[in-house]
Amino acid sequence: MKQFIVIGHLARTDGDFSLNDMPGGAGRMDVLCRCINSSFFLSHDLRRDAECYLVLLGEPDPKKTILFRGDSLRYLSPDERSAGSLIKKALALPCDEEFRESTPGVFVRRGGLEELLTECTPVLLDEGGTDIRDMEELPSAYLLSDHHNFSESETAITNHLPRVSVGPTVLHADHTITVVLNEMDRREKSSE
Amino acid sequence: MKQFIVIGHLARTDGDFSLNDMPGGAGRMDVLCRCINSSFFLSHDLRRDAECYLVLLGEPDPKKTILFRGDSLRYLSPDERSAGSLIKKALALPCDEEFRESTPGVFVRRGGLEELLTECTPVLLDEGGTDIRDMEELPSAYLLSDHHNFSESETAITNHLPRVSVGPTVLHADHTITVVLNEMDRREKSSE
Repeated sequence: MKQFIVIGHLARTDGDFSLNDMPGGAGRMDVLCRCINSSFFLSHDLRRDAECYLVLLGEPDPKKTILFRGDSLRYLSPDERSAGSLIKKALALPCDEEFRESTPGVFVRRGGLEELLTECTPVLLDEGGTDIRDMEELPSAYLLSDHHNFSESETAITNHLPRVSVGPTVLHADHTITVVLNEMDRREKSSE
Repeated sequence: MKQFIVIGHLARTDGDFSLNDMPGGAGRMDVLCRCINSSFFLSHDLRRDAECYLVLLGEPDPKKTILFRGDSLRYLSPDERSAGSLIKKALALPCDEEFRESTPGVFVRRGGLEELLTECTPVLLDEGGTDIRDMEELPSAYLLSDHHNFSESETAITNHLPRVSVGPTVLHADHTITVVLNEMDRREKSSE
């Protein structure tokens, strides 16, 4: 299983945003939509062994986590609006501490990074980290931030995590996911 | 200079499409918008040494080529609608065989791949090609297709081009550009 966790520091936590204004009114939801695209899409196929967690911290009802699971995901197209529309549907659902499915392969629950870190131990993508190409074994879970840096409280609970870099240039979160998956694809192929 | 050429086989050639329906009515213009994003965006910066050519072959007025130049590009945000809106503005301009600037860093002209191939010699991104990591020197120009394969007539005029692969898995065009740029970033850094 390949897992990506992306923090959306301003991302709205109700479904009441316009698909025509995801960078603005939806709190840079467009960043998260692109992370969904890069986590799952292959040419004419989906990565069935991937999961992407979106941690939404914006108003009016933080924190919520939306999970996209490749093994059961349906109705997702590559464009930003498609992911945005599935996120809207998930956010329209009343939610508690357990994941509830809104559309096939998309789930929502109350809670954020702290809860996720009790369930998995990701590495933190960071330009100062170990180069992913130099790692003997690739981690299966990766933590990224949107256009904002990790907050102080996030840094406090992630300080112990190993840091991994995808190269000398600081990239957008979705581009970073693409580069990580390319390295995973290459390792899998060479171990076949 | 880093150059990417992307063929949009169905992409509309007038500005009369809705930003709300780029995958449908605009002929998969969303694919091309994502290629613009991956060609230029760095975290809090733009790649000023990149150019991306979009070859639009759809109705009602093919063929047209739109050029985005990083060195003078303005008003581009990472979301698909932003690139789509700059493309609409370019397509609203009357055009002939010379590039004409529609907004800073965005140009349009009549003509397609055949004209471009008299001006540069790209490599063709193809899963059967030489692994980019194994190349002694990286090419500066890369030719990609949207969600459709190259047509017969495109294949006829590109058959002589070297073929390069970014890994064992067939990726979307925008993801491919991201992986190519990551390899370029690494080479540049190691030659500093």
